[in-house]
Amino acid sequence: MYRLYDYLPSGNGYKVRLVLRYLRLPYELVELDIKQGATRTPEFLAMNPDGRIPLLEVPGRGHLAESHAIINFLAAESLLVPNDAWQQAQMWQWLCFEQYSLEPNIGTARFWLRSLRRTPEELGERLLEKQQKGAAALTVLELGLGDRSFLLGDQVSLADVALYAYTHVAPDAGLPLEPYPAIRGWIRRVESESWWAPITAR
Amino acid sequence: MYRLYDYLPSGNGYKVRLVLRYLRLPYELVELDIKQGATRTPEFLAMNPDGRIPLLEVPGRGHLAESHAIINFLAAESLLVPNDAWQQAQMWQWLCFEQYSLEPNIGTARFWLRSLRRTPEELGERLLEKQQKGAAALTVLELGLGDRSFLLGDQVSLADVALYAYTHVAPDAGLPLEPYPAIRGWIRRVESESWWAPITAR
Repeated sequence: MYRLYDYLPSGNGYKVRLVLRYLRLPYELVELDIKQGATRTPEFLAMNPDGRIPLLEVPGRGHLAESHAIINFLAAESLLVPNDAWQQAQMWQWLCFEQYSLEPNIGTARFWLRSLRRTPEELGERLLEKQQKGAAALTVLELGLGDRSFLLGDQVSLADVALYAYTHVAPDAGLPLEPYPAIRGWIRRVESESWWAPITAR
Repeated sequence: MYRLYDYLPSGNGYKVRLVLRYLRLPYELVELDIKQGATRTPEFLAMNPDGRIPLLEVPGRGHLAESHAIINFLAAESLLVPNDAWQQAQMWQWLCFEQYSLEPNIGTARFWLRSLRRTPEELGERLLEKQQKGAAALTVLELGLGDRSFLLGDQVSLADVALYAYTHVAPDAGLPLEPYPAIRGWIRRVESESWWAPITAR
């Protein structure tokens, strides 16, 4: 059985938990408190030298880090990954965009405000920069969705799982979603999928 | 024929140019000066709403952004992408690590110092933070290489192309490579490949 090292408020971990639910794969959850340095212990660093969750332990193979590497490994043969090479390229474009332009801004601002309980006054310019770049990423996502149901068209894919994870909690980062009607409709569609569960669900 | 919108000093663009060389694929290069806002014009944003290079124009399909989505699309059927699912998962782990932990630190510090010609004194704390995180990423890479020839073993892969691009110019970001013997040996091996060319080669 898979073992997942994770921190339940993490949107990156949430992507993996949603894909495991979609695939109906049982797994053992090992919760680690990243605020207390639980991923920087010698034991954890021996499994992932980068010291981050989510980390998937695959029986007989080893450990796999990086949320998008994990979800692609788990879902590669499922309908969440399109067979068509161009569609798959679009999927990876969205996944890469998420890790470069969306998560480091929205995810980090949310972590500062919600997990570390810092205030906007304390954070000052650093928070404003993250929010400005986060809003720019939401605009790219809004344009990318246009009038599609899901990011690649009519069919839900890993791109939706990966982009949804931090987008739906953007208000936690001080970024309300009112200016983004396409995003709000898409969030409702993702949340009506049978395999959906809230971010901190086990 | 493919058309590549690029900025020659960019390590992200370099990954694409190296893979095109490896595959011996001809392409038209369109050089854009990102310092002058050439990727933020209405014309460019119509092709890539995220306003970044590299951008690949694929005849009959459209435009593809994100260096790792592009190189995986180009090389998917080549020896640069392993067939084995676990090996492919390791490859994506390295690619995701590069975009999250290595490029935003080493690439950004290098851009500030070399392209924008700012000084360490002007940049202050912001530069030091990028350098500290960049050094942490180099340590993870050093450990990951160990005594292997390439990141996935004996065979060069997209992981090597992607990680090499910004690692070999780490000194431009104020991060000398002397403390990393495994990285230095690996850089020599990548640079002795027949398809290798310097970063600003067309």
